Amino acid sequence: MTTTTAQSPATGSGLPPTMRANILKSQGDMAMETLPLPQLDADQVLVQVAAVGVCGSDVHYYEHGRIGPYVVDHPLILGHELSGRIAAVGSAVDPSRVGKRVAVEPQRPCRKCKQCKAGRYNLCPDIEFYATPPIDGAFAEYVTIQSDFAYDIPDSVSDEAAALIEPLSVGLWACERAEIKPGSRVLIAGAGPIGIIAAQAARAFGATEIYISDIAEDRLAFALEHGATHAINAKTDSVEGLDVDAFIDASGAPQAVRSGIQAVAPAGRVILVGLGADDVELPVSFIQNREIWLSGVFRYTNTWPLAIHLIADGKVDLDVLVTGKFALAESEEALKAGKQPGQLKAVVYPGR
Amino acid sequence: MTTTTAQSPATGSGLPPTMRANILKSQGDMAMETLPLPQLDADQVLVQVAAVGVCGSDVHYYEHGRIGPYVVDHPLILGHELSGRIAAVGSAVDPSRVGKRVAVEPQRPCRKCKQCKAGRYNLCPDIEFYATPPIDGAFAEYVTIQSDFAYDIPDSVSDEAAALIEPLSVGLWACERAEIKPGSRVLIAGAGPIGIIAAQAARAFGATEIYISDIAEDRLAFALEHGATHAINAKTDSVEGLDVDAFIDASGAPQAVRSGIQAVAPAGRVILVGLGADDVELPVSFIQNREIWLSGVFRYTNTWPLAIHLIADGKVDLDVLVTGKFALAESEEALKAGKQPGQLKAVVYPGR
Amino acid sequence: MTTTTAQSPATGSGLPPTMRANILKSQGDMAMETLPLPQLDADQVLVQVAAVGVCGSDVHYYEHGRIGPYVVDHPLILGHELSGRIAAVGSAVDPSRVGKRVAVEPQRPCRKCKQCKAGRYNLCPDIEFYATPPIDGAFAEYVTIQSDFAYDIPDSVSDEAAALIEPLSVGLWACERAEIKPGSRVLIAGAGPIGIIAAQAARAFGATEIYISDIAEDRLAFALEHGATHAINAKTDSVEGLDVDAFIDASGAPQAVRSGIQAVAPAGRVILVGLGADDVELPVSFIQNREIWLSGVFRYTNTWPLAIHLIADGKVDLDVLVTGKFALAESEEALKAGKQPGQLKAVVYPGR
Amino acid sequence: MTTTTAQSPATGSGLPPTMRANILKSQGDMAMETLPLPQLDADQVLVQVAAVGVCGSDVHYYEHGRIGPYVVDHPLILGHELSGRIAAVGSAVDPSRVGKRVAVEPQRPCRKCKQCKAGRYNLCPDIEFYATPPIDGAFAEYVTIQSDFAYDIPDSVSDEAAALIEPLSVGLWACERAEIKPGSRVLIAGAGPIGIIAAQAARAFGATEIYISDIAEDRLAFALEHGATHAINAKTDSVEGLDVDAFIDASGAPQAVRSGIQAVAPAGRVILVGLGADDVELPVSFIQNREIWLSGVFRYTNTWPLAIHLIADGKVDLDVLVTGKFALAESEEALKAGKQPGQLKAVVYPGR
Repeated sequence: MTTTTAQSPATGSGLPPTMRANILKSQGDMAMETLPLPQLDADQVLVQVAAVGVCGSDVHYYEHGRIGPYVVDHPLILGHELSGRIAAVGSAVDPSRVGKRVAVEPQRPCRKCKQCKAGRYNLCPDIEFYATPPIDGAFAEYVTIQSDFAYDIPDSVSDEAAALIEPLSVGLWACERAEIKPGSRVLIAGAGPIGIIAAQAARAFGATEIYISDIAEDRLAFALEHGATHAINAKTDSVEGLDVDAFIDASGAPQAVRSGIQAVAPAGRVILVGLGADDVELPVSFIQNREIWLSGVFRYTNTWPLAIHLIADGKVDLDVLVTGKFALAESEEALKAGKQPGQLKAVVYPGR
Repeated sequence: MTTTTAQSPATGSGLPPTMRANILKSQGDMAMETLPLPQLDADQVLVQVAAVGVCGSDVHYYEHGRIGPYVVDHPLILGHELSGRIAAVGSAVDPSRVGKRVAVEPQRPCRKCKQCKAGRYNLCPDIEFYATPPIDGAFAEYVTIQSDFAYDIPDSVSDEAAALIEPLSVGLWACERAEIKPGSRVLIAGAGPIGIIAAQAARAFGATEIYISDIAEDRLAFALEHGATHAINAKTDSVEGLDVDAFIDASGAPQAVRSGIQAVAPAGRVILVGLGADDVELPVSFIQNREIWLSGVFRYTNTWPLAIHLIADGKVDLDVLVTGKFALAESEEALKAGKQPGQLKAVVYPGR
Repeated sequence: MTTTTAQSPATGSGLPPTMRANILKSQGDMAMETLPLPQLDADQVLVQVAAVGVCGSDVHYYEHGRIGPYVVDHPLILGHELSGRIAAVGSAVDPSRVGKRVAVEPQRPCRKCKQCKAGRYNLCPDIEFYATPPIDGAFAEYVTIQSDFAYDIPDSVSDEAAALIEPLSVGLWACERAEIKPGSRVLIAGAGPIGIIAAQAARAFGATEIYISDIAEDRLAFALEHGATHAINAKTDSVEGLDVDAFIDASGAPQAVRSGIQAVAPAGRVILVGLGADDVELPVSFIQNREIWLSGVFRYTNTWPLAIHLIADGKVDLDVLVTGKFALAESEEALKAGKQPGQLKAVVYPGR
Repeated sequence: MTTTTAQSPATGSGLPPTMRANILKSQGDMAMETLPLPQLDADQVLVQVAAVGVCGSDVHYYEHGRIGPYVVDHPLILGHELSGRIAAVGSAVDPSRVGKRVAVEPQRPCRKCKQCKAGRYNLCPDIEFYATPPIDGAFAEYVTIQSDFAYDIPDSVSDEAAALIEPLSVGLWACERAEIKPGSRVLIAGAGPIGIIAAQAARAFGATEIYISDIAEDRLAFALEHGATHAINAKTDSVEGLDVDAFIDASGAPQAVRSGIQAVAPAGRVILVGLGADDVELPVSFIQNREIWLSGVFRYTNTWPLAIHLIADGKVDLDVLVTGKFALAESEEALKAGKQPGQLKAVVYPGR
């Protein structure tokens, strides 16, 4: 245990005293600032950030200043999809980790509550998560994380792919909860980054038929190249009667959720990933008559090791999702990039 | 399978050539008739019906002439909660079964489809279920059932309790799917027969706190005596913040479903038993953020042996639910009895 | 059930009145004979056998005249790995199935017992299994099977591959029980047909590291080409400390079982597939201290549909296992072929 | 997290500077000594020990100076079944806990390894466990434990019962891993404290038939009064053919393990709790043919809350197990008490 070691500034190892960060000052207002290096706890590592993926939630905080109950009432550093290099370690961490390339799981569970001790730390009521007020994220040169949440990555995994393990983890967690198995038939609604990643994850879990639905033909075409086996244009075609083993919603669109549920076979599973309305009218008697299981994903638990395996084995390809690259000072452009047609995932490089 | 088995009239063992039945001729129109004894397949037994419980679905067919897609367009014998005595057996059944008291599981799965072979015969698309058009039920002197769906009962189990194993099975199946375990905290919405039975089932599964909610004080008081540990008057009290491990809805009331879901702890389960509207607005983001599993029950699978154990051990008490007793000719009164205040379960005795 | 179903000779569709079969008369004594076509029950199909794989159990019956309690005290037709074409159907089967190419699951569960109704029909105490006294197998021109145990196969699946779905099913069932998942690390002992098939199955389940151990270098080399990722020569190398998630024994060798168990990580699984001594000394305290789960496989349940998917998708390759091809009259040579070096799987063609 | 707070002597709250402990100096040699109070980490509580149960492992360390690889090569404080009162709290713990009666879960997992994060902290390779060299136990006036491993107990739970939650946890964990459910039929070998506790736990899990086997009639008689439903004298009666759903071995006797396994039904479970020989000859083909799952228990995970529920509800009765009471200075007599006929569980009271 590290419980007896005091916190200390991460200095003494040729580190600068300060770092640059691009901060969300308030709704719609970003600014570059210089901050002291973060303090390092005994069980933490200091990570020099290499790449940060832009997530829809970052964009939502930037545009609306809040997500549900989480309000940006103080300056906040966004970004929670990241990779980097260990620049310093706390007193309880093996010093040989310094210099290692790592993918960061951006959450800090309490490790002590009922949920943590049951192996469901993503449901920890006291968890701290990057870029969720008031916890700062990764649009900065340096961040800290518990050592066991910084995972070594092989040279074959790019900085971008390592950063995108975070959204991949959402897809893997969805597939695990959907009980995707060899031979499974899966429907995924929404061909955005999460939908495409979920399709790749489903393929890695052995799904033999992976239907993806969307209203954008270009996204469907891309999804067919990178994970899906069948594409369905929701504007013109119906998913009714597919009788899939699992339906994963990555659209957040109530109509897609409703029709997707009705495409599920008896004893099948529905996993809601997309964030939409708080309340949605669901076909309850259909769910009852088929004894379908419905749930959602809230982040993920213990997914990084598998994700690194799958990327290294070439079973998933995250690099193809990167459609925009930005310097730290360009983070605001990165947040806006997703609006452009054909854009999937923007990446910010704090070292540039 | 028996579809092509040479059938034979169940005669030659001192059986009468005909039987009496109280038939639903059409919506709201019941009539006593004399019919030939049902044909007996090789793997079936002929059961002389002792007691039949009246279920809400029987009442619904009587009052509305249909339930969803199931329409009473030909005369139908209602009743699917039954016990009796084996009066004759098919050619492939051990003759020593004749004379045995049995509880009848009123369904006939195909035994060959994917669902049946996976142990989920309740989801068999070709299943035949008593008192569901066009399959006749048990408001009659005799019925037939596959031998393995007629379960021997000990003398300590009354005819009424044996008949009510059918609704008990719904409660047991709900508890199994809700993963009720020793120490579980459970909320049940609706203190009707199913709610009270579910409370007794939850207690048998080891639940230590069993909250039941209803708007009728007399039902709540009865539930507290016969299964629940806490009563909640939904008119005056909220279930918010209970954070139960499982919520079982036996009310079918959309508002009860919505508030019940919001009383479930992270990683908890919601099982919808009550039949209400086809579509219900559910708190989807709440379900996602807590990774709650939601499903329903459609009948049951392999519950009779456990039910007989629990009744014989005194762990559940079904006799207390019987509030009205009727002769076969009084079946219509039995169907109307549930409307009276204080009435829980009416039982019809075809032998009377 | 078919026990009392009016049987009928499968004639009237241009079928011959008799067929040839190569019969095990007694230990070590095979003979070609002419028999009447088997009787066809209402729910069965008559299959004209195309290919039959030779299994170690066939060889064992031939050489020793028994396997444990199963004694060949009457003439027996061996062979339970088969494919063919439907030549006739029973009165309850869709006539359009005639002419279809099928892979046969060679077992007849009762469909009524506790195990069958729980979805574990492989554990049915009344099951009938091909080539297990007194049930005849497939070294014959024609066999009968329940229609739902004859699975349509696409043209892309060869007769040999379709026949070898039987041993593939053993491997799939082992992987399912071993809970092989994406990212799993697996050790397989024994690089014979079952070991190689298990390695391919593990790969299909997403295992990223598949260690296979044997004492024959040529088998190890072949296994590396067709499923395994690492080979271990048990004569010179140890598996100690591998800390795999699962160990599948396909060797039946007590020493391999013991050392394999000690290569399993905490909470890992051990599945014993190989048949060896009735009693084996196991490292019980090791199993206790790591809470390892140990079990075996007894045939399989509901594996054919997945197997057909995997073959058609090219995720497993069974054709490469075929090292000998024999006419029906050469069945005895086929039974002896396995002894030759470099031989993996012999196939008998009853049509030749 | 508590990672930034320094350790401090637990003084300043009217605590004495020293405490008395009864220490195992070396094999067979106990001595009372005065020691400084243990240091208190930020996330720990200091517990004034009220009662300590004597476990077979304590006796084994006293008599043999080792258990397998764990050697008493330095003085060691024995005792790991304990309850007490919180006397002081670390800087990160709610001060209102001081004065609370608690049951102590005597283990300290790392909370960071793969096993801990998967909810299996009992399998943590870096775990520290009381009275396992070199970690001191509870034959002392004071001990420390992480705050979340000290569970508040209601007044209705005695000090002795609270201490015996530790062995109860072994029984609960065995029943959970054995998947005991309502209606289960269970065989338990060995009617010592663990066997009787396992019987009570099985009853709490809903088992309807609980067979317990032993060679001592007085133990069998006691077990029948306190949990078991059927007693089997292993000297005269066989368990063959019982076909139970689960077998829990609490005897550690190889013959009991072998015969117990052969009493398990297909798809049943075997849980080995008793510690016997490192290697035992098991009926492997029986396990394979019935697809029985076999494993063991290594301590327990997340069992205290349920245990407290069950004791408070009167579903288990631990007080009846206490057959000897001793002052701290009499710990050596307590360690020897188990040898006397009719003795089940000795308890040491460090406050006396």
